[in-house]
Amino acid sequence: MGKSETPTDNLSFILNKPHDVIFAQQPKPTLQSPHHVIVAINYTGICGSDVHYWDHGAIGSYIMEEPMVLGHESAGTIVSIGSAVKTLQPGDRVALEPGTPCRRCEPCLAGHYNLCPEMQFAATPPIGGTLTGFYAAPEDFCYKLPSHVTQQEGALIEPLAVAVHMVRQAMVQPGHSVVVMGAGPVGLLCCSVAKVFGASKIISVDIQRSRVDFALKLAATHCFIPAQVSVKENATRLLRESRLGAGADVVIDASGAESSIQTSLHVVRRGGVYVQGGMGKNDITFPIMELCLKEVTAKGSFRYGSGDYKLAVELVSSGQVNVKSLITKVVSFGEAEQAFKDVKQGKGIKCLIAGPNEKI
Amino acid sequence: MGKSETPTDNLSFILNKPHDVIFAQQPKPTLQSPHHVIVAINYTGICGSDVHYWDHGAIGSYIMEEPMVLGHESAGTIVSIGSAVKTLQPGDRVALEPGTPCRRCEPCLAGHYNLCPEMQFAATPPIGGTLTGFYAAPEDFCYKLPSHVTQQEGALIEPLAVAVHMVRQAMVQPGHSVVVMGAGPVGLLCCSVAKVFGASKIISVDIQRSRVDFALKLAATHCFIPAQVSVKENATRLLRESRLGAGADVVIDASGAESSIQTSLHVVRRGGVYVQGGMGKNDITFPIMELCLKEVTAKGSFRYGSGDYKLAVELVSSGQVNVKSLITKVVSFGEAEQAFKDVKQGKGIKCLIAGPNEKI
Amino acid sequence: MGKSETPTDNLSFILNKPHDVIFAQQPKPTLQSPHHVIVAINYTGICGSDVHYWDHGAIGSYIMEEPMVLGHESAGTIVSIGSAVKTLQPGDRVALEPGTPCRRCEPCLAGHYNLCPEMQFAATPPIGGTLTGFYAAPEDFCYKLPSHVTQQEGALIEPLAVAVHMVRQAMVQPGHSVVVMGAGPVGLLCCSVAKVFGASKIISVDIQRSRVDFALKLAATHCFIPAQVSVKENATRLLRESRLGAGADVVIDASGAESSIQTSLHVVRRGGVYVQGGMGKNDITFPIMELCLKEVTAKGSFRYGSGDYKLAVELVSSGQVNVKSLITKVVSFGEAEQAFKDVKQGKGIKCLIAGPNEKI
Amino acid sequence: MGKSETPTDNLSFILNKPHDVIFAQQPKPTLQSPHHVIVAINYTGICGSDVHYWDHGAIGSYIMEEPMVLGHESAGTIVSIGSAVKTLQPGDRVALEPGTPCRRCEPCLAGHYNLCPEMQFAATPPIGGTLTGFYAAPEDFCYKLPSHVTQQEGALIEPLAVAVHMVRQAMVQPGHSVVVMGAGPVGLLCCSVAKVFGASKIISVDIQRSRVDFALKLAATHCFIPAQVSVKENATRLLRESRLGAGADVVIDASGAESSIQTSLHVVRRGGVYVQGGMGKNDITFPIMELCLKEVTAKGSFRYGSGDYKLAVELVSSGQVNVKSLITKVVSFGEAEQAFKDVKQGKGIKCLIAGPNEKI
Repeated sequence: MGKSETPTDNLSFILNKPHDVIFAQQPKPTLQSPHHVIVAINYTGICGSDVHYWDHGAIGSYIMEEPMVLGHESAGTIVSIGSAVKTLQPGDRVALEPGTPCRRCEPCLAGHYNLCPEMQFAATPPIGGTLTGFYAAPEDFCYKLPSHVTQQEGALIEPLAVAVHMVRQAMVQPGHSVVVMGAGPVGLLCCSVAKVFGASKIISVDIQRSRVDFALKLAATHCFIPAQVSVKENATRLLRESRLGAGADVVIDASGAESSIQTSLHVVRRGGVYVQGGMGKNDITFPIMELCLKEVTAKGSFRYGSGDYKLAVELVSSGQVNVKSLITKVVSFGEAEQAFKDVKQGKGIKCLIAGPNEKI
Repeated sequence: MGKSETPTDNLSFILNKPHDVIFAQQPKPTLQSPHHVIVAINYTGICGSDVHYWDHGAIGSYIMEEPMVLGHESAGTIVSIGSAVKTLQPGDRVALEPGTPCRRCEPCLAGHYNLCPEMQFAATPPIGGTLTGFYAAPEDFCYKLPSHVTQQEGALIEPLAVAVHMVRQAMVQPGHSVVVMGAGPVGLLCCSVAKVFGASKIISVDIQRSRVDFALKLAATHCFIPAQVSVKENATRLLRESRLGAGADVVIDASGAESSIQTSLHVVRRGGVYVQGGMGKNDITFPIMELCLKEVTAKGSFRYGSGDYKLAVELVSSGQVNVKSLITKVVSFGEAEQAFKDVKQGKGIKCLIAGPNEKI
Repeated sequence: MGKSETPTDNLSFILNKPHDVIFAQQPKPTLQSPHHVIVAINYTGICGSDVHYWDHGAIGSYIMEEPMVLGHESAGTIVSIGSAVKTLQPGDRVALEPGTPCRRCEPCLAGHYNLCPEMQFAATPPIGGTLTGFYAAPEDFCYKLPSHVTQQEGALIEPLAVAVHMVRQAMVQPGHSVVVMGAGPVGLLCCSVAKVFGASKIISVDIQRSRVDFALKLAATHCFIPAQVSVKENATRLLRESRLGAGADVVIDASGAESSIQTSLHVVRRGGVYVQGGMGKNDITFPIMELCLKEVTAKGSFRYGSGDYKLAVELVSSGQVNVKSLITKVVSFGEAEQAFKDVKQGKGIKCLIAGPNEKI
Repeated sequence: MGKSETPTDNLSFILNKPHDVIFAQQPKPTLQSPHHVIVAINYTGICGSDVHYWDHGAIGSYIMEEPMVLGHESAGTIVSIGSAVKTLQPGDRVALEPGTPCRRCEPCLAGHYNLCPEMQFAATPPIGGTLTGFYAAPEDFCYKLPSHVTQQEGALIEPLAVAVHMVRQAMVQPGHSVVVMGAGPVGLLCCSVAKVFGASKIISVDIQRSRVDFALKLAATHCFIPAQVSVKENATRLLRESRLGAGADVVIDASGAESSIQTSLHVVRRGGVYVQGGMGKNDITFPIMELCLKEVTAKGSFRYGSGDYKLAVELVSSGQVNVKSLITKVVSFGEAEQAFKDVKQGKGIKCLIAGPNEKI
């Protein structure tokens, strides 16, 4: 950000096409309804999906057709409010839920707004993201941060809400054994959330020793590093080493990797639950008879829904989940492109980019 | 059955090894506990799994290591009762639930006895089946047939209970659209049961025109015959032709076929339910991202559990499900081997074998 | 309606204070948002709550403080649509869901909009009702009627949706025995809906022989008329006469009467479900230990929510529920006051009032 | 225990009729099945129901007709095992689940064995209790205690399992606010268990200051002492003082007191859950319209069922619940009668009675 800019500038980090990004001013957003607020963005985390758009210009059927602002894991400060807004005031610090549903379709009315076909989600084509100065959002999708929670932590509410949604989909209960495949940011947070939900055994699985070590420090009770053996053999070893007996009550895949998903079905117990949260290949080889004969309940987990952000803020506020420890690096807005390159190379756990008007 | 045999004989149809069957006398069973009864078998249906053992000597990890009596879809008549039996008397006509759980393990105590690891299931190695004269069973696994329900219908309670369990796993509700993949006996019965559960659209899918025509007569509201096109194209056509809009509320796979399972995931709506009941290959190519991004709930369905047999008897008794129409042929005990050959060749829908002491 | 009025008039039936009603013109409503439509009211049923306001000016904490248009059970015809409306056109015939939630509070986002504290519900102070010429509503709360469903039937969708909600709260499943206390319009419709949900026994309970006789013709399998004996004795007789053995799977109270509620707890089985839908006294003598020791699940049922109206329209459209038979009388708008008096005196089952611009 | 007795004696504490107890030898139990074990009782807690029998000879419809051994909250040591027992050996220290269900009825097969009509429950007429030397139980109802859990703690597993069952019935989730009415042993343990289930606010309510203070030390975040004002006024104060806004997500009544139950309905939020666990009068004045209009889910909680004892042992073993702190006093077997008198007078929280062969 140049020196001559003022807080009213709206500098944005825009992806023109894969690997072609620019910093450019964009019109400042306006209040679209009396229920909207304008948020000055303070910090934004980089998500795997952002990197994927930067790298490929598309995720599955979501294809960029014009330049798009990146970013959707943000916290900020309210700068103005619509006439009907009651719970927020300028100056309030908030975590920003980055998708606005239509509120009128069947999934919305049924309490599953994350499945809304009209969802407008930040940095999902053609909707612009939050790596910008100011962002408009409805009041009820901005979650006030208590004074002892920083805006850097606030930017981590988004991946934590993803983890909360996964663990809720998994119906984790006290006493459960929970295997979490993958120890990236979301997998790590799944371990933390599973602990809050009372899991008595939490097994973090990743091919990187450093990641499962981090998981053990954070919340996991056991870890497992898959070996270069068959999926069934890895499953057998995992069950034996973690003393899971006839299988895990719950397996959450936060990796998207084919072999992890296959292993998931082999380690979940009869009548257990397996949740697919990680994204990867569209089609994989899948042990379908494990699902059938063991009467596994398998569920997808997509973004977050009713109550997930609220709980995520509460878990950080109460100290039950330590998101701060996941923040590896905080860079200025001008360093955004380098930060994307670093994340692409797997450096660190979670990198935050300061807002264009934020001094760091 | 030979002329010289008396009702006290216990002639059985025994599989020595694949394609090697004999008729031989076996010891008559005795009351193993005060809660047991002895049932004279009247009729037994042939199930795909029976044929599979006859053909291969094994299903998955269930491997025959010694000769085994085949059959498990049976109705019969009580001939003697244990001292603690209160609800049954000699002469009562019953449908026989052919698996006895341990009643003591965690799944049993939690109400999921079909997942009992100690389950003793008829014609699943090493437990003998019901193609025999007399069979011992616990009182609470014998379901009295009302006088207007025949014992031939009683033999169909077993596949109907399988269908009841699938539809319950699928949580079908009034107003739902339900796609049933496969129109063999269980798929057909799933259509009937889905109707009882209030489904407003029931789409029967099979590659044989005659089978879906039967489904339409029985309970389906629509049918679909997959074409020699891609899975996605078949899914698109199915949705369009059956006016399913954004997808079916529920998809039940009663086929076990890889392409049907793939299609299932493409036709189920966001937030919908898919149940895998049919058995087939252990590993298949599976559109996992459909499960993840649409937050599908996928469940296996294995045999039947608490309340399924009871409801199945009630549905036949009340006339809500017409199992009689599925009975293509009834043969004498002595014709059992030929009946197996016919079923293997796909002749008819359901063939019954009379008990060795039954005149037909 | 006077001869000189034209279709653009907006004559309304207004309650000034208890027993003081007038017919007066009111401003025609306008489109409050691009998602709204204007509906010309064709028919409106009279509900017990309307009569209660007419009689007392209040229901519990809902107290009229100024004149209010009565009525909320309506069907009508779209006369104009907002710019964002996609699924409706002028001329479409619709059943009108008469409450608009805020769409932004926790209950709304969680799929329980009937619990919205900001709900704007027709003829609930201070919101005006539908006994008027034209009414504004959001697109998604207007349900298109198929051509073979009349607008008189459309007006019955409202009480049917109330019954659908109760039966859903009760989690009725095929095979269940269901006792319905009260055989007024909602109780009768609960019997019909319970049948659609697969209940195998439906026992209608009312003190009027004519009402339970109607229930038997409509959907009930058994009936019971409480005698002048103790609640426990009535419960014992009900269980014995309806052969309910150890109790009913489900009991729905659609009466609000103290003795019915008490009986409900005595007839529901261990582990059964009891739903309180009928409204009556705030405080009653209640057999709390029945709830505790039998682990009954008791649920309130309030209005209707996600999917209830949609299913109600489907049940009428498919012929599964015959609402037409409940219509005892249809009167012109000018006869509204007399109709209220008749309903107050318990005449007939359901009386409809034609809209002010409707010829009958 | 007298000096001359040997470990083979089976001295028992027997209630002849109200307030008339004796110590007498009883036949030692034998193994009733190959699945049974014999447990030497080490410690037994006194429960309110034991005191109630001692005081009145009956609880509701359970009426003593002949002398009965009291006690059912016990831990002990395995002394012999049946031939089919696999998981236990003589010398193993166990918590004893004191009720044996039939395993064959509908509730048993459906996973609700606590609702079994044939339940044989210790110290519930006519079944004898555990204030005796030796007790026979089925293997799967004896829960091995880890070496770091004492048998005194083991005796507390019973009331903890009661609390686990209540909290499970209440479906407590992370983030929930939970009000617990009553701070006797079970109410206190409900606070602890609610914390394990992730409740963020736990409000202990009791009329005794010392009891809520104990709750605050144990697990509660807030407390409330009802004043001599109306139920509604107490409810309003409770909500305001505990900052519960529009109501508590969950209210658990562990008191059985009429005013507490009434308050429960007034403090639970719309759509919230209220569980009745405490036992008191059969009939009370109950605010039924609160249940109806707020769509409260009310559930009874009776004893404990599938998985409750297992989780209770785990919670003590992991240190998540501190049952030791509830033990106010441990007395010898010979002091049992005085201990009953003390409990009746409300002295202390939980008193344990050593087994007749236990030195303390």
